[in-house]
Amino acid sequence: MKGLVFKDINQIELQEIEKPMIEKETDAIIRITMTTICGSDIHLYHGHMQTTPGYTLGHEYVGIVEEVGGAVKSLKKGDRVIGPAAPFCGYCENCKNGHIAQCKNGGVHGSGKEFGNIPGTHAEFSRVPFADNNLIKVPENLKDEQVLFVGDVLSTGYFGAEKCRIQPGDDVVIFGAGPVGLCAVQAAKLFSPKNIILVGRKNQLRLDIGKKLGATHIIRTDKDDLFKSISEITKGKGADAAIEASGSEIALQQAVKCVGISGRVSLVGLYSKNIELPLPEIFMKNISIEMGLGYLGHMQRLLNMVESGQIDMTSLITHRMKLDDIVKAYDIFENNQNEVVKVVVTP
Amino acid sequence: MKGLVFKDINQIELQEIEKPMIEKETDAIIRITMTTICGSDIHLYHGHMQTTPGYTLGHEYVGIVEEVGGAVKSLKKGDRVIGPAAPFCGYCENCKNGHIAQCKNGGVHGSGKEFGNIPGTHAEFSRVPFADNNLIKVPENLKDEQVLFVGDVLSTGYFGAEKCRIQPGDDVVIFGAGPVGLCAVQAAKLFSPKNIILVGRKNQLRLDIGKKLGATHIIRTDKDDLFKSISEITKGKGADAAIEASGSEIALQQAVKCVGISGRVSLVGLYSKNIELPLPEIFMKNISIEMGLGYLGHMQRLLNMVESGQIDMTSLITHRMKLDDIVKAYDIFENNQNEVVKVVVTP
Amino acid sequence: MKGLVFKDINQIELQEIEKPMIEKETDAIIRITMTTICGSDIHLYHGHMQTTPGYTLGHEYVGIVEEVGGAVKSLKKGDRVIGPAAPFCGYCENCKNGHIAQCKNGGVHGSGKEFGNIPGTHAEFSRVPFADNNLIKVPENLKDEQVLFVGDVLSTGYFGAEKCRIQPGDDVVIFGAGPVGLCAVQAAKLFSPKNIILVGRKNQLRLDIGKKLGATHIIRTDKDDLFKSISEITKGKGADAAIEASGSEIALQQAVKCVGISGRVSLVGLYSKNIELPLPEIFMKNISIEMGLGYLGHMQRLLNMVESGQIDMTSLITHRMKLDDIVKAYDIFENNQNEVVKVVVTP
Amino acid sequence: MKGLVFKDINQIELQEIEKPMIEKETDAIIRITMTTICGSDIHLYHGHMQTTPGYTLGHEYVGIVEEVGGAVKSLKKGDRVIGPAAPFCGYCENCKNGHIAQCKNGGVHGSGKEFGNIPGTHAEFSRVPFADNNLIKVPENLKDEQVLFVGDVLSTGYFGAEKCRIQPGDDVVIFGAGPVGLCAVQAAKLFSPKNIILVGRKNQLRLDIGKKLGATHIIRTDKDDLFKSISEITKGKGADAAIEASGSEIALQQAVKCVGISGRVSLVGLYSKNIELPLPEIFMKNISIEMGLGYLGHMQRLLNMVESGQIDMTSLITHRMKLDDIVKAYDIFENNQNEVVKVVVTP
Repeated sequence: MKGLVFKDINQIELQEIEKPMIEKETDAIIRITMTTICGSDIHLYHGHMQTTPGYTLGHEYVGIVEEVGGAVKSLKKGDRVIGPAAPFCGYCENCKNGHIAQCKNGGVHGSGKEFGNIPGTHAEFSRVPFADNNLIKVPENLKDEQVLFVGDVLSTGYFGAEKCRIQPGDDVVIFGAGPVGLCAVQAAKLFSPKNIILVGRKNQLRLDIGKKLGATHIIRTDKDDLFKSISEITKGKGADAAIEASGSEIALQQAVKCVGISGRVSLVGLYSKNIELPLPEIFMKNISIEMGLGYLGHMQRLLNMVESGQIDMTSLITHRMKLDDIVKAYDIFENNQNEVVKVVVTP
Repeated sequence: MKGLVFKDINQIELQEIEKPMIEKETDAIIRITMTTICGSDIHLYHGHMQTTPGYTLGHEYVGIVEEVGGAVKSLKKGDRVIGPAAPFCGYCENCKNGHIAQCKNGGVHGSGKEFGNIPGTHAEFSRVPFADNNLIKVPENLKDEQVLFVGDVLSTGYFGAEKCRIQPGDDVVIFGAGPVGLCAVQAAKLFSPKNIILVGRKNQLRLDIGKKLGATHIIRTDKDDLFKSISEITKGKGADAAIEASGSEIALQQAVKCVGISGRVSLVGLYSKNIELPLPEIFMKNISIEMGLGYLGHMQRLLNMVESGQIDMTSLITHRMKLDDIVKAYDIFENNQNEVVKVVVTP
Repeated sequence: MKGLVFKDINQIELQEIEKPMIEKETDAIIRITMTTICGSDIHLYHGHMQTTPGYTLGHEYVGIVEEVGGAVKSLKKGDRVIGPAAPFCGYCENCKNGHIAQCKNGGVHGSGKEFGNIPGTHAEFSRVPFADNNLIKVPENLKDEQVLFVGDVLSTGYFGAEKCRIQPGDDVVIFGAGPVGLCAVQAAKLFSPKNIILVGRKNQLRLDIGKKLGATHIIRTDKDDLFKSISEITKGKGADAAIEASGSEIALQQAVKCVGISGRVSLVGLYSKNIELPLPEIFMKNISIEMGLGYLGHMQRLLNMVESGQIDMTSLITHRMKLDDIVKAYDIFENNQNEVVKVVVTP
Repeated sequence: MKGLVFKDINQIELQEIEKPMIEKETDAIIRITMTTICGSDIHLYHGHMQTTPGYTLGHEYVGIVEEVGGAVKSLKKGDRVIGPAAPFCGYCENCKNGHIAQCKNGGVHGSGKEFGNIPGTHAEFSRVPFADNNLIKVPENLKDEQVLFVGDVLSTGYFGAEKCRIQPGDDVVIFGAGPVGLCAVQAAKLFSPKNIILVGRKNQLRLDIGKKLGATHIIRTDKDDLFKSISEITKGKGADAAIEASGSEIALQQAVKCVGISGRVSLVGLYSKNIELPLPEIFMKNISIEMGLGYLGHMQRLLNMVESGQIDMTSLITHRMKLDDIVKAYDIFENNQNEVVKVVVTP
């Protein structure tokens, strides 16, 4: 079959590789019908995270069950499914305590042996471990494009919104208008804040999508006065909650500063270096900071809300391409951020 | 009456000053029967927090009601009371939302006009605004020394323990063996962790008191290997919770590093500069950080636990002095930290 | 001034009474510009709750500050305000613990000496104790009709929704399509459930309003099969949450039966007799039941959401009458429930 | 092997039966080294719960792994283990949502085909499904008697204490001094209430054990005035929390009445009939009621606390018998409640 192989730092190639096989009786083999490129694929591609080359990239997908191992009970060949970027075992100490993102026996699709050696989804087939725990059936009336993002960026954006504990009537600020930030806008809206303030820099297309998806205000830090704007919108009290989805130090500092008394800040960006936290300035506001990998246990709930129309994922799709052109798709996703949000890839 | 006046940076003097008077009908005048020196008094004394000199210092006290304003309903002359370091109004937007530490109409005793202009307690009398909200009657069977710390360091230590959400059987690390850290030890113990690991540096006397008060393990960073010790005690999983009560950057960094998956860290030290947060190292553990001024709404609950013997405050008292010697008491408190924890001062 | 006096059981009369005056320095006198009749007024009128006759009825209002006591700091003559049905002191033990509905020094407007002897609002003027705690200024752009219900039925409906801890995507059932039930529909909607199932009996007008306000499904127990319908809507799993706003035993039993595993049920009806709880049938679902008087501390938050258009209160108004006709208004409100929801009354 | 068979209502017999075998690759076979009789065994024995006779009774055990299925990863022959009374699969919808007590693929040991057809533990061997999820290794330094109750009555008692959300300094009332009630006493103590009031009737032996385990007050309803006593102990405010562990209607009614404003009541008894809830009397206190099957996901945490000495289970053991005498043991357990708490049974 065809698969996109990470051959070395800055070197990827679509080539003929072996089709994955059932390795344990809890595995399932999935024929990929749609996949997409994520910011962390780019990080892996350029070696920002240390991994041993030679594996297939990709961790977001919709697919059809091709084969299941002997212990898989809830699925059969032909089922259309989605699954999490990071499959979990369900029985390790971390899973038992609900911390499935830190599963000791799982890993992340398409990230090499350092992350559990689970095949990537930028290929014709992939293998999903602990299939009963991880795969969720997709209702017939939903299209691949509607559910493709549930298992990664949507779960992450929802996690950001949930962790900053938005109450109805609150004012929320979201930093970063990338795919996660835009998912956070929709997730935040579910908690009925009064204002959703989306903060970006330059990327007007993305901000416009954010506005369509529920942001009540857009702030561009390259031309607006961030703190003055937030103060005006919140009538001087500061935001009640903030979601940092950009991964930048300055955005994180702005996030903790822009919230008011008892503000809650959630961090769902990826941070590659230490961050200077302005403690003296924020300490007396009694704020809380929550951080981490998105919770992948809400996929069924999120899928239900896609089905009910409460969440719209297709607005994030700006490009549709073929697997044969995936190297080009990487280039577009990485280098044309003012014109692209999500690129979906089909066989 | 006599009162300790902050005359200028690095200059304090016990002198004859005017006795405070009822200014609003919600005020009460208290005759101070016991007071004590706090780390923040030292900060004010040396100008680390910008305040306009000319006020009386001190914010921890036990006293007898001398006089009440016309609107005070729950107190009368002769009642023995304690009150919070920072009296609150109860009706401003912040108070109504439960954020009484950020009251807009209150302030902090003995901190000058920048902090509400409320008289200090290092004097024979003080004035307490919003007396009905703030003053709590002390049962006859309790001595001044048992309840003196309820309204500041005990409330702060309890806040630290509460905010890191200790569950029975957890492992907790407490950084800092000063008065707040030692109160945090006792507060943490109320939530029945399996291990309470108290971390200090050099100050063996304080660590010994911590052990007496409930710490199961003592780590001295000047001679022990902190992370190795914590790893051994927690069987490799890291701490479940940490309380940072020292105010130092390195302790805060150790606190966020020493907790395991889903660890909770509360910050109750006073931080005078920005802190470098090692985000890449801690992000994937999905930790939470809570910070801020201690909650002063639990005073009655804490007082009840002093009464029931669940909390012992007198072990913190190492020195007993007279108001006439308070300047000397400041010197001892500030400069002999290896021999002193709390100095109580009586008229 | 004119006021509606409860003269004896089943006997009310609009008559000339004395205008209330400032009694304590924390009081305010309000000129009533709009009031309305509540189900509990009817209960009082008919003696279902034992009170000593001779007082003015009514506890929902919008008004203009006419005069303030000497200790009132946040209000002045001419301010347009709303206030809670049950004013609270803010400093008693219950208030300090956040249980303001159980304030020891407050009471309920228009309910006689058994409930704090606070004048009713079915009159030209009323007196509000603890004015700083209780009165909230109304923005100019909002009309009386938009904010009239904030301090009682809306707060109660919101409490019902909050207490059953609705998560996005949940299925919620609301029993009772009276004013509180209809407020609960709107409040529930703020938490973005997938389905809001409103259950009533006969009162089609009210159910239609419920549908307009956000109910996704209507069930009439006089002709529909309740449990079958709920099972179909929830795909067999049962509801995630239920709000009982009717006060009837059978509705309460249906509420605890219709929720699924880990269901949450909140009770905000008024129950005049003991209720038989079907424990054997519900115990193994591990459900929770929360009950009680609505929380009146969210009025500012609710007012903000009325202002932002997130909550629409005017749809509940079916009748508009004059104070001179209030006895007739009581009759309409009580006896024509299939044609009336809320009757507003102006001077 | 020998096993105690439920032959018909009121008819049990120790007889030679087939040793259980691995049926699925996720199973484990356990050689029982210690078991005990539970109140629900008695209910099954007498047909209070409808089950089809012919199965082996018993659901509490300590044992040695005899054999594991091919998919079991965390255990091997010879491991000493405990497991929950109700094994769960970990991957069904309920398990994924954390509601493992309502697992769709699990069941309860020794309760027949109506409850999952899992062999009982009143036998020489049993079979544990989903072994990786359910079995927990016992440290060598702990004896069977110390850990035998972790997987059922201790988990249930802890659940009761956890669900009524005890805060340090609270007053807690526990109804029922049977095994669950006595476990609740110890569990409650972990949250550091000021007072733990244990309520029983006649069974002085059990109440004495309760006092030894942490109850600060004992109330015997056959001779003491319950409400007067609680009012005195709580200084008139009522209890903050109550745990109903007796299963009786009157105790449940007392529980909801004895709590004060915002009281929390947890129900962990087994209720065989509908209960009349005195709503008019309790509604305005804004109480919450939580009920249901104990949470079995805290076994590791509870085991750790047994190991650290925070929980003492051996005080519940009043009788030690042999499997050959188990029919007699049932008789003693059922009929001599004033002299017996728990009977442990060894091969």
